[in-house]
Amino acid sequence: MGISLGPNQYGKAEVRLVTVRRDGPVHHLRDLTVSTALSGDLAATHLTGDNSAVLTTDAQKNTVYAFAKQQDVGEIEDFALRLGRHFVATQEAITGARITVAEHAWERIPVDGDPHDHAFSRSGGESRTTTVTVHADRAWVVSGVDGLTVLKSGGSEFHSFPRDEYTTLAETDDRILATAVTARWRYDGDPADRDVDWAKNHQEIRRTLLQAFATKHSLSLQQTLYTMGEAVLLARPEVAEVRLSLPNKHHFLVDLSPFGLENHNEVFYAADRPYGLIEGTAVRDEAEEPGPARTDAVL
Amino acid sequence: MGISLGPNQYGKAEVRLVTVRRDGPVHHLRDLTVSTALSGDLAATHLTGDNSAVLTTDAQKNTVYAFAKQQDVGEIEDFALRLGRHFVATQEAITGARITVAEHAWERIPVDGDPHDHAFSRSGGESRTTTVTVHADRAWVVSGVDGLTVLKSGGSEFHSFPRDEYTTLAETDDRILATAVTARWRYDGDPADRDVDWAKNHQEIRRTLLQAFATKHSLSLQQTLYTMGEAVLLARPEVAEVRLSLPNKHHFLVDLSPFGLENHNEVFYAADRPYGLIEGTAVRDEAEEPGPARTDAVL
Amino acid sequence: MGISLGPNQYGKAEVRLVTVRRDGPVHHLRDLTVSTALSGDLAATHLTGDNSAVLTTDAQKNTVYAFAKQQDVGEIEDFALRLGRHFVATQEAITGARITVAEHAWERIPVDGDPHDHAFSRSGGESRTTTVTVHADRAWVVSGVDGLTVLKSGGSEFHSFPRDEYTTLAETDDRILATAVTARWRYDGDPADRDVDWAKNHQEIRRTLLQAFATKHSLSLQQTLYTMGEAVLLARPEVAEVRLSLPNKHHFLVDLSPFGLENHNEVFYAADRPYGLIEGTAVRDEAEEPGPARTDAVL
Amino acid sequence: MGISLGPNQYGKAEVRLVTVRRDGPVHHLRDLTVSTALSGDLAATHLTGDNSAVLTTDAQKNTVYAFAKQQDVGEIEDFALRLGRHFVATQEAITGARITVAEHAWERIPVDGDPHDHAFSRSGGESRTTTVTVHADRAWVVSGVDGLTVLKSGGSEFHSFPRDEYTTLAETDDRILATAVTARWRYDGDPADRDVDWAKNHQEIRRTLLQAFATKHSLSLQQTLYTMGEAVLLARPEVAEVRLSLPNKHHFLVDLSPFGLENHNEVFYAADRPYGLIEGTAVRDEAEEPGPARTDAVL
Repeated sequence: MGISLGPNQYGKAEVRLVTVRRDGPVHHLRDLTVSTALSGDLAATHLTGDNSAVLTTDAQKNTVYAFAKQQDVGEIEDFALRLGRHFVATQEAITGARITVAEHAWERIPVDGDPHDHAFSRSGGESRTTTVTVHADRAWVVSGVDGLTVLKSGGSEFHSFPRDEYTTLAETDDRILATAVTARWRYDGDPADRDVDWAKNHQEIRRTLLQAFATKHSLSLQQTLYTMGEAVLLARPEVAEVRLSLPNKHHFLVDLSPFGLENHNEVFYAADRPYGLIEGTAVRDEAEEPGPARTDAVL
Repeated sequence: MGISLGPNQYGKAEVRLVTVRRDGPVHHLRDLTVSTALSGDLAATHLTGDNSAVLTTDAQKNTVYAFAKQQDVGEIEDFALRLGRHFVATQEAITGARITVAEHAWERIPVDGDPHDHAFSRSGGESRTTTVTVHADRAWVVSGVDGLTVLKSGGSEFHSFPRDEYTTLAETDDRILATAVTARWRYDGDPADRDVDWAKNHQEIRRTLLQAFATKHSLSLQQTLYTMGEAVLLARPEVAEVRLSLPNKHHFLVDLSPFGLENHNEVFYAADRPYGLIEGTAVRDEAEEPGPARTDAVL
Repeated sequence: MGISLGPNQYGKAEVRLVTVRRDGPVHHLRDLTVSTALSGDLAATHLTGDNSAVLTTDAQKNTVYAFAKQQDVGEIEDFALRLGRHFVATQEAITGARITVAEHAWERIPVDGDPHDHAFSRSGGESRTTTVTVHADRAWVVSGVDGLTVLKSGGSEFHSFPRDEYTTLAETDDRILATAVTARWRYDGDPADRDVDWAKNHQEIRRTLLQAFATKHSLSLQQTLYTMGEAVLLARPEVAEVRLSLPNKHHFLVDLSPFGLENHNEVFYAADRPYGLIEGTAVRDEAEEPGPARTDAVL
Repeated sequence: MGISLGPNQYGKAEVRLVTVRRDGPVHHLRDLTVSTALSGDLAATHLTGDNSAVLTTDAQKNTVYAFAKQQDVGEIEDFALRLGRHFVATQEAITGARITVAEHAWERIPVDGDPHDHAFSRSGGESRTTTVTVHADRAWVVSGVDGLTVLKSGGSEFHSFPRDEYTTLAETDDRILATAVTARWRYDGDPADRDVDWAKNHQEIRRTLLQAFATKHSLSLQQTLYTMGEAVLLARPEVAEVRLSLPNKHHFLVDLSPFGLENHNEVFYAADRPYGLIEGTAVRDEAEEPGPARTDAVL
C-alpha cells in the first residue's frame, strides 16, 4: 500500500506592513496585511526533511518588506503580482505562488476643516483585498472586499417558501435585511495581457455592490446576492465572475405584546448566532474557467 | 469567624437593540448595545436563594426593548437615564442602577449621489458610549468613545528616558505614534440639574480629541494623552474629568540593511503584542469627586 | 452577453445545540455546533426571488433541534448523515446537503474523587469535527479536529534551506516547534457501504497525530506534517486522505546578551503574527478522488 | 480654572513568555502572559514630555525576560512580586508597581502510556492568574482563575422572583446553569510577612470552587456565587476576600411543540448574547480593606 504527498503549499501568513511615503510635508500612509503561499516540487522536505528547496517563510516576509522599500507599493494587485512573480522566477522548485493582500483604509484627520498632513484615523472594519496566483506562464487576479456591513430597513420581503413539517417561520413583506458582504471578483485573462485600472475597478465595484443592495427590492437574500453580482458584471467587462458570501444577520422583531405594545417594525434585536449563510456566484457566460485561481486552500 | 456579602451587582449584559423610526419614506436607524447592572439589598438571594428582590435580568432586557418603543430612544445618555431611574424608582430593593450603552454608527448608502432613504452601511469600528449611575437622589453620567484608532507618521519623538541595565531601546526623534483611543469623560453634577446637549458634546469632544492628537508635537504618549484630556476640559465646561486608555500600537522600523537598503522611516511592521499601555486622567481642579460613578465593576 | 448563476449553496450556520440525556440520576451532556448548507436547483430564487424551492434556513435549524429529540444524537458523523439525507430526500430541488458538526468536549467535575452525575467543566479549546456531503445516491464523510495545540521543546531542527538575497534566518539544530493542528481525514467510500466506528476512529487518529508529533525528530514542520498524516493512514485503513493545516506558532529565542546573560534555549517569546502556515496532504495511492467532498465553500 | 493630572499608570501589556527548564532529558515548560503597570511621580512626562522618570515599557519587557533567565520563574505570585519589587526599588520616581501574570497550562503528550519528556499539548482555555501590587513598604496579592467554564444540567431552580409589568420569564425548578468563572481571591496581609503556598492554594481553591458549583443545589446564580466564595474562605484562612464574575450562559429550552414533540429538558440552544452577568463578593469579616489592591485600572 502506497502513501503519497498530495496538495500542499506553505508560506508566511499575515505580514503586517505599514508604509509612509513623503511628498514634501504631506505623508501618504498605506496599511496592508500580506500572506504568501508557495507550491511546487516540495516532496523532499515532506518526506525526508531535506529543505534544499524550501525558501524560508522568514525570507518570504523579508521580501515583502524589501519590495515595499524598493518600489512604491502602488495598487495591491500590482504589489502582489510583483511578489508572486519574484518567487516563481527565482526559486527553481517553486511553480506556483499565491499572494493575498488586504488593505486597511485610513483617512486624514480634519483640523479646522483641512486634512492633516500626517495624522490619520482608521476608516472602519472594511478591507480591500486581492489574491493573485502566479505560475511560470501566466497569472490570475481575484480582488474583493471584506467586512462591508450593510442593512436595509425597507424594501425586503421573504415569503412563498415551502412549508415542511419543521417550518414555523412567518411570511413577511417587510423585514430588515442586513449582511456583511464578502465579495470576490475574478478578472478575466492574464493581467500581463491587459491594462486594468485596479483602483478604479475597486471603487466602481464597491459602489455598484452598494447601489445594487440599496435599490433592489428584495424577495430573498439570494436574489439580492445575484443582483449584486450581475450588476458588477454588467458594469465591468474586465470581470469574469463575482462570488459573494452573505451572512444573513438576522434582526428579529421583538414581541412587545405582553407589555400591551404593538411593534410596527420599530424595535428589533440583532442576533449573533445562528445565522443564515447565503453563498453564490454570478458568472459571465463566455468567461474562462477559474482554474488555479480557485484551488486555493489545501484544507 | 464571620463571612459576609461584599460588593455585588447583577444585570443583563449586551442587549442588542436596533430601532427604525419612519419619517415618511425616510427611515432613521439606531443600533445600540445596552447593559444593565442593579445593586441594592440583595443579600437574600446570595445567602438563601430567596429571589423576592431579584428583578430578573430577562425583565431588564424586556424593559430596554419596551422603553425603546414607548418613547424615541433619543440621545443614549437620556435613554440610559430613563432606564436607570425606572429601575431605582420601581424596585424597592434596588438602590443603584448602572446602565451602559454603546452606539454603533451607520451612514446612508449614497445612490447616484443622494443618501438612500432606508439603506445603510456601517461606519466603522468606533462606538459612542455612555455609562450612567442612578441612585434615588441623583445620577452621574460618564460618556466616551471606544475604538477610535489614530496614527501619526510625523511629529512624534521619544527620547531622554532613563537607561537602566535592562534598557536597550534607541532614542528617536521621528517615530510612528498610533493608538486606539478609549476615552471616558465624566460630566459634572447631577444631569437633572443641568441641560447638557449630549450629542453636541460627543461631537465636539471627539473632534477635540482628534485635533489634539493630530496637532500636538509629541514627546511621549503620556504627553499626548494629557494634552487630549486637557483640551476637552478647556473646550467643555460641563466635563469634570477625562480618562484615557491609550495602547501604544507599536510600529517598528524594519531593518532592511541586510538587503543593502536604507529605511528612512518608510517601511514598518505593525506589532500585535506586547504593547505599551498608557492610562491617565486630566481633572478639573474644582470638580466634584467621581463617587459612585467610578466604582463600576465588582472585579 | 449572458450572465448566469454559478456555484451556490445556502443554509444555517452555527446552530448551537446542547442535549442532556438522563440515565437514572446520571446525565449525559453533548455540546455541538451544527451548520447546514443545501444546494440544487436554486436558480429561481436568485433570478426572480421565487422562493418555492427554498426550504428556509429557519426550518433547517428547527430540523437540527427536532432530530436531536427524536433520536439520540449519537456520533456526530451519524447525526450529520441523518440530517443531510433528510434534506436531500424530502426537498425535491435539493440535490446536495453539506452538514458540518463541531463537538465541544466536557468532563465531569470530580467531587471527593468521584465524577459528578450532572456537573461538568469544559475540557478545552479543541473540537472534534465532521463534514458530511450527501447526494441522492451516495455520501462522503470528512472528519477532523480543530484547535489541538501542541509544542515540543526538543527534537526539532531547521537548517540546510536555500539562502537567497532576502534570507537572514539563522540555521538551528534545536528550536521550539509549536502549532495548532487542524486536521481533516476523509473516509474512503460511501458510509452506507461500510460500518465505521466513528468514535474509535476519532480517538485513535487523535492519539496517532499526537504520538507522531511527539516522537518524530523534526527537520521541518513539513516533515512533521507528512509524518502525522502518514501515521494516520498506516493506522486506519478506512481513511483515504489526511489534510493538515499547521500554523507555525513561532517561539523566538530572546536575545539576553545586552544584559550579560546567555540564553541556552531557555527563554522564548511567543509571537502572534506573522506566522508560517504549512498546509499539506497525505494520500493513500489507490484512494478514490475526493469529488464533492472537497468542493465545499463557494468563496 | 486649573486642570491637573489625575490617576495614571503605564507599562507593557501582554508580554508573552515561554520558558524551558531542562532536568536531564526531561523538559519543564512554562507559558505566561505578563503585564506591568508603574505609577508614581509621572507628572513631568504628561505635562511637558520630560521623560527623565519614564522607564521605557521596552525595558519593562526586557526585565521580564531577563528575570526569567536569572532565576527559575517559580510560582507566578513570586515572579510577579520579584518584578514589582525591582521596579519600585530601582526607579526613584516609581512608588507603585502592579504586575499581572496569567499562566496557561500544558500537559505532557502521552506516548504508549508514558508522558513524553518534551512534547506537550495545551490543557484548555483556563488560565491561572495573579495581580500583585507593590509599594515601597508592602505588597498585596490577588490571585485567581479565568475561563473556568462549568455547567450543571440538574440541581438548579429559578423562581419566586418579583413580576413587574415587564416580567415574562417562566419560573422553573429544573434548568441548565452554566457560567465561565472569573474568580479573584485576595490574600490577607503582606506576602513578606506570611509564607503562603501559592501553588497549593491555587489547586485547593480551584477544587473548592468546582465542588461548590457542582454540589450546591442552586436557587439562583447569586446563591451559587456566594456559596463558591464562602467555601473558599472556609477552606483557606490566608484568603481575605473572593470576588466572582459569573456570566449566566443561558441555555434555553427549544420549543418543539410545533413538531408534535415534548421537550423534557433534553434539547437546548446555547445563546451568545445577551447574557445575565452576576458579580459578587464574599468577604471575611475581620479582613483588612483591599486598599491599593483594588484600585487597579484607571478607566
